[in-house]
Amino acid sequence: MKIEVYAANTHVTKKELDGKVVVAIDTLRAATTIVTALNNGCAQIIPVEDVEAAMDLCSKMRHNNAVLGGERNAQKLPGFDFGNSPLQYVEEAIRDKTLILSTTNGTATIARAVDAKALYIGALINATALVDELAKLHEDVTILCSGTHGKFSSDDIFTAGCFIHKLRSRVGKLELDDLGRMAEDFYARNSANVHGALSSATHYQRLVSLGLQADLDYCFSIDVCDVVPIYQDGRIVAR
Amino acid sequence: MKIEVYAANTHVTKKELDGKVVVAIDTLRAATTIVTALNNGCAQIIPVEDVEAAMDLCSKMRHNNAVLGGERNAQKLPGFDFGNSPLQYVEEAIRDKTLILSTTNGTATIARAVDAKALYIGALINATALVDELAKLHEDVTILCSGTHGKFSSDDIFTAGCFIHKLRSRVGKLELDDLGRMAEDFYARNSANVHGALSSATHYQRLVSLGLQADLDYCFSIDVCDVVPIYQDGRIVAR
Repeated sequence: MKIEVYAANTHVTKKELDGKVVVAIDTLRAATTIVTALNNGCAQIIPVEDVEAAMDLCSKMRHNNAVLGGERNAQKLPGFDFGNSPLQYVEEAIRDKTLILSTTNGTATIARAVDAKALYIGALINATALVDELAKLHEDVTILCSGTHGKFSSDDIFTAGCFIHKLRSRVGKLELDDLGRMAEDFYARNSANVHGALSSATHYQRLVSLGLQADLDYCFSIDVCDVVPIYQDGRIVAR
Repeated sequence: MKIEVYAANTHVTKKELDGKVVVAIDTLRAATTIVTALNNGCAQIIPVEDVEAAMDLCSKMRHNNAVLGGERNAQKLPGFDFGNSPLQYVEEAIRDKTLILSTTNGTATIARAVDAKALYIGALINATALVDELAKLHEDVTILCSGTHGKFSSDDIFTAGCFIHKLRSRVGKLELDDLGRMAEDFYARNSANVHGALSSATHYQRLVSLGLQADLDYCFSIDVCDVVPIYQDGRIVAR
């Protein structure tokens, strides 16, 4: 199995992802939010890049049980029902709802890969469930990290390394690119101390400065859900 | 001092580099070739992205002591005087010459940064000389790795880490981005065993498969030259 890794959604073109099996990662926090919402009974998630377009769509779908979530600069937007904290998406709030989601980096990553052959959403909280699904496919995989504003973000690389490390124990021989090797090594050296490995990272520090330590604790909890989100025809549902 | 690192020339726009102090890295092998040629008395190097344009320019400048060097797919091109092996650029071959150079990744990296406030070319063979120059500037620095066809390449990240590590001992407090932290850590853990750290890397393996082990040995020799190449008005000269 061949695995290639990109550190940010802008590091690869939409065309290069066409027809591939892609895993979109946004550890802090969109992917963790998507997994959590589906785990808590959300019917479907519609990712929308543009804030205005998300608001328009939600107002049209209000009678269909739609709610609006997301962030810009890590903060909830005016008129939105939810921010991008996965802890807000509890069962009472999200069961049977359609979530319209617009975030800074995560929804752009999904938009980049909508023409993939298969598009999964992965986070640390659903790592093993996702890897079990990938192992069954017997196909090459492209791991597309969101990064932060086009830049390499250590939290996403850690998650990519986690997936690779877990895949290795299931499928045996892996063919990795340089970033995949670096990611697996980073994860393997730090799997017992996620906060220690990531506490100096820019995105981690940004969330700490906003008082979101509880979000960090949750986003770094490995394997607390077994939902595998998959993108199909404009929406994300549980596989 | 703030340092940002990009893993490939396509990960940043030309506009984002405008007005910045940029160090272009292409460890395997264009940057190492540029440093070596200048160290051996080459008068100036004119980087040209397009092969045809490079051939045209060289034919016009033949009477001005011009020679043509470079590669595609790591191999010398028909009609070229030299390939991209730094070991070919010995003093007898290059002294007082103008080198027209066209390579796959390195010349694209230089082209991306031509509107920088200052553009240096760095490799492991001139690491300390380059870092001494940067430390004197008291300015923020952008390290622009060439990568390989738009992808993260461990050899360039190792060199970026080397520069950061050496800068730290000269200027004290550094403000790094996530990739800069990863690069410095990668270098610090492996500085005594460059080949061990990089032998599984894709570009390393490609050069081994072409029988270019001697190039690898030379490209990974730290501080064998004290030339600092700088780009000015379309050409690269020794600072």
